Amino acid sequence: MIASTIFVSAFNQTQAIAQQNNRKVRIANIEIDSAYVGEYRAALAEHAQVAVQVEPGVLALQAVYDKAHPTKVTVFEVYASEQAYQLHLKTPHFLKYKNGTLKMVKSLELVEVAPIAIAIKPELMK
Amino acid sequence: MIASTIFVSAFNQTQAIAQQNNRKVRIANIEIDSAYVGEYRAALAEHAQVAVQVEPGVLALQAVYDKAHPTKVTVFEVYASEQAYQLHLKTPHFLKYKNGTLKMVKSLELVEVAPIAIAIKPELMK
Repeated sequence: MIASTIFVSAFNQTQAIAQQNNRKVRIANIEIDSAYVGEYRAALAEHAQVAVQVEPGVLALQAVYDKAHPTKVTVFEVYASEQAYQLHLKTPHFLKYKNGTLKMVKSLELVEVAPIAIAIKPELMK
Repeated sequence: MIASTIFVSAFNQTQAIAQQNNRKVRIANIEIDSAYVGEYRAALAEHAQVAVQVEPGVLALQAVYDKAHPTKVTVFEVYASEQAYQLHLKTPHFLKYKNGTLKMVKSLELVEVAPIAIAIKPELMK
């Protein structure tokens, strides 16, 4: 019984690590036209909340703006896999956000990254 | 009873928003000496896990490296308040990380940011 529990636990751990290794993690650096700062933030906030809520493969979308340069926006994105990201690109909420903000975005830089540590308290989401 | 519940709920919500507004959110852009990439990652990973685990005021430390330029590290940091951050700077684990990695860090840029949306699934932490 103990041996079986250890086996299951080791299996789950191996599976969890495999799933983590499959993740697509990215930083988007976005420069917004200063005329649309408020409007863009509202559109991005709505998009992030909806995507994480309804898409199983969108694990996190954390968006912030630079206090000293409010037209600079950074999004820290985590998808379960490349496949989950490709599905995300076809969702109605992504297309609404993308098409609705095209005129507001001056530049977009996408940086593929890999995790060193993802340490989060549950309180962050309250 | 219903009125009282609504009142409590509204109070909790107001309190939650006030606490969120008090948060210190920051992005650290770090350039590492290429000779120490692995050693630095190990030190940062340990520091992030310990800080979020033991400090009530450290809500999240999410660290990644640029796949195309592995010496470029980004940390997305959330503290409960400026005071929580000041306490963090005095902890033994922060001082161990800071002093232990001084020779590995070529440059450090700290960007004060404000949240647009923080949308995270609980699965991210598994």
